[in-house]
Amino acid sequence: MILKRESRVIGFDDGPINPKENESILVGVVIRGKEYVDRVLTAKINVDGTDATEKIIELVKKPKHFEHLRAIFLNGISFAGFNLADIKKISEETRLPVIAAMRNPNVAKFRKVASKFPDKDARLKIIENAGEIHEAKINRTSTYFQCAGISTHDAEILLKKSIKRATIPEAVRIAHLIAAGVVEGESRGRV
Amino acid sequence: MILKRESRVIGFDDGPINPKENESILVGVVIRGKEYVDRVLTAKINVDGTDATEKIIELVKKPKHFEHLRAIFLNGISFAGFNLADIKKISEETRLPVIAAMRNPNVAKFRKVASKFPDKDARLKIIENAGEIHEAKINRTSTYFQCAGISTHDAEILLKKSIKRATIPEAVRIAHLIAAGVVEGESRGRV
Repeated sequence: MILKRESRVIGFDDGPINPKENESILVGVVIRGKEYVDRVLTAKINVDGTDATEKIIELVKKPKHFEHLRAIFLNGISFAGFNLADIKKISEETRLPVIAAMRNPNVAKFRKVASKFPDKDARLKIIENAGEIHEAKINRTSTYFQCAGISTHDAEILLKKSIKRATIPEAVRIAHLIAAGVVEGESRGRV
Repeated sequence: MILKRESRVIGFDDGPINPKENESILVGVVIRGKEYVDRVLTAKINVDGTDATEKIIELVKKPKHFEHLRAIFLNGISFAGFNLADIKKISEETRLPVIAAMRNPNVAKFRKVASKFPDKDARLKIIENAGEIHEAKINRTSTYFQCAGISTHDAEILLKKSIKRATIPEAVRIAHLIAAGVVEGESRGRV
């Protein structure tokens, strides 16, 4: 797995949920090299819904950047509450490696929450598709990840290359800041 | 004017205007060093309104980052249509240097537009407060700027330091990408 200095990757995160809304913001950030922000994309996804997978695929496949992308990074696999991203499907439909990085995985709790939804079979299937959780030591901290469309070994290398000062991939870190900033700005605007 | 490697600056830009809305998004991005994105802030401002100045001051003065900030960069002085930012007032109230950078200044046209508003005196005063437009050659391109709370000489040095690959300050460039990404995502969501 070679990630050239000018390769582009995309990272996704969601914003905090506003209790008055059924939708939440999903932010994708395209990074060139290790840090240069190339593009910002957003979409709305349903809180606890089932559209995270398709919305991520839609934003990844947008023209202008799709052909340059080399990898997709997610902040875990759940967005907007429990709207699960199917990393296997995302990788298959984009032909790109997908790495879901997280700080504190809790599989048992995750399955338990999934089991409470009427469409629990579909949700448990997405959790299963995400595969095993692996550990990587980065900047003296444990970062955990699941991956699709790439070997565990290569995913760990890619993950390390994508992290700058923090413990999550730079594109995900910036997506997180943007989503939080937009939601906070919106909620203040409402008061 | 010393800008240390870890100094923080904030850059502002607005998003494209949605013709169906009276408000537009204002995005502020705090950058550490030359490129590390530290924080993203947003607010809504009125299209052709008069609240850009106070909203910029409000976002600049937020705790957590205010004490670390060393400069404010704006993408010109007009936001959300013709909502003018008073760089003199922003500098006075924040005690920070303010630099409004632009690609193609057109003062005559600017004054003409201002003159059509009922509160034209207040708007022309803000244009006057922004002072002379200076030219800086950066990356073989002319970048124009107005400044407050800093000498023209120091502003030019600061401007050059704040620019990475493009011809506008990095914080403004990223604010621009975010504002465009959010507005585009919202408008797609509506269809």
